[in-house]
Amino acid sequence: MDALKTGWFSEVSDMWPGVCLSFEVDKVLHAEKSDYQDIMMLQTKNHGKALILDGIIQCTELDEFAYQEMISFLPLCSHPQPKNVLIVGGGDGGVAREVAKHPAVERIDQVEIDDRVVEVSKQYLQSMAVGFKDPKLNLFIEDGLKFMERNKTKYDVIITDSSDPIGPADCLFQQQYYELMRDSLRPGGIICSQAGSFWCNLDTSVRSYKNSKTVFGNAAYAYASVPSYPSGVIGFVLGSSNPETDFTKPAYVLSESVLESKNIRYYSPSVHTAAFILPRSYQKYFV
Amino acid sequence: MDALKTGWFSEVSDMWPGVCLSFEVDKVLHAEKSDYQDIMMLQTKNHGKALILDGIIQCTELDEFAYQEMISFLPLCSHPQPKNVLIVGGGDGGVAREVAKHPAVERIDQVEIDDRVVEVSKQYLQSMAVGFKDPKLNLFIEDGLKFMERNKTKYDVIITDSSDPIGPADCLFQQQYYELMRDSLRPGGIICSQAGSFWCNLDTSVRSYKNSKTVFGNAAYAYASVPSYPSGVIGFVLGSSNPETDFTKPAYVLSESVLESKNIRYYSPSVHTAAFILPRSYQKYFV
Repeated sequence: MDALKTGWFSEVSDMWPGVCLSFEVDKVLHAEKSDYQDIMMLQTKNHGKALILDGIIQCTELDEFAYQEMISFLPLCSHPQPKNVLIVGGGDGGVAREVAKHPAVERIDQVEIDDRVVEVSKQYLQSMAVGFKDPKLNLFIEDGLKFMERNKTKYDVIITDSSDPIGPADCLFQQQYYELMRDSLRPGGIICSQAGSFWCNLDTSVRSYKNSKTVFGNAAYAYASVPSYPSGVIGFVLGSSNPETDFTKPAYVLSESVLESKNIRYYSPSVHTAAFILPRSYQKYFV
Repeated sequence: MDALKTGWFSEVSDMWPGVCLSFEVDKVLHAEKSDYQDIMMLQTKNHGKALILDGIIQCTELDEFAYQEMISFLPLCSHPQPKNVLIVGGGDGGVAREVAKHPAVERIDQVEIDDRVVEVSKQYLQSMAVGFKDPKLNLFIEDGLKFMERNKTKYDVIITDSSDPIGPADCLFQQQYYELMRDSLRPGGIICSQAGSFWCNLDTSVRSYKNSKTVFGNAAYAYASVPSYPSGVIGFVLGSSNPETDFTKPAYVLSESVLESKNIRYYSPSVHTAAFILPRSYQKYFV
């Protein structure tokens, strides 16, 4: 009992009461309060660097690829030809890095509210922030909703890589946001949003799914195994106004040579399909 | 930093350095040192009761069904007619509970080395220990290896529900044990063993897979999402001397009415198949 000692970071939150994950920390590399949130960068003992926002683990170098690949390639590969992509959030750059790997993608717009997350990631998380260097990427530091209200570009895919629905990302879990996304999609366009774990944030997962289903008519929930996230999984909600879109079967199949040459480590066409198979008692929430 | 306080149980172990899961504890219900291990039963704040052996979380009432169902139904449903089943370990009774649900099963032998785990589970984990009351079950308190050496019964399925390869369960991860299991199987028989997480115990997972492949010729690795286990997943190694067995496709399909009436919450035929789809960079270790 009471085993944790000085030198561990513990992710205690009301979002997952009574349970927490902790990392042993070698060094606090950076800590600041931005206009939007507390930003902390830790050098952990065994998980590389870890980005913490408002006390919540956003990513660790050890397993970030699982999340970044899945939130990117699930929607991108559900679309037959995803040329124009919008990323909302994603301040560490990891999603931009993955989206840029897709052979069909020609243009990536990204809108992140907090430039301090971008700057801190550029300094400490180079393997993710490399995404910001891609020539296809246009980065806007702005509120995502305002950007979508003023910006007239239409997208094939919109990926919302947000933190949890407490703090600056809360608006990204509202139905109004899904309607904004719908108005920014080309015909046949697809959205994908971080939607919490069915194990410990079932309300969030179901709310996001229902918002997507209501606004788009065609929606689905998938998940990935990411050890650094609460309950070890993270969910994604997809949506499209095209009733023909079958999210569970890739419409764009990444070849083995692309997967290998682009260092894609979690996603594959078979992983894509399996990600939609939930434990039996949870499947009923997402139909 | 240093957020955890008195009243939390933390699972610190060299098996997963630098990371640990913690549960807030309402009460320590039981603590003893048996002949084999430290046994502790916790009433947690949000995960029901939790059984801890030698400081390692074995199961919590919240998510134990995921593990118990998958280690049982993956091998049972890979066999066309699993009549005789042996369970090695499984002292909490949860695997016996699940195996008894399978319509084809006629006889279940179980051998558990530590009767104190059985007794403590009967006292505190009734929802699992209900497995010990099944009329098909014969429980032997004995060393699993000695039982298999002296017992002449042959089985269709042998399930090894062990703790990790430190302490009394270490022998269950050795090749010699796989050879013993082979000699206790009927033709076409199938084994399934707990084999660690590919994320944080890849060596254990690969060693178990290779033992199974070497001894049986036909082997596979699957996994399930179990939030209370390190990295949020647990793996299973299957094996059979029958080269025709395709572990990934159920040979015995549990109907929806059986799944529903037996309260099977994680497993389904589609979950069965998806469990063998690993993240791309891990698949290569299990071919």
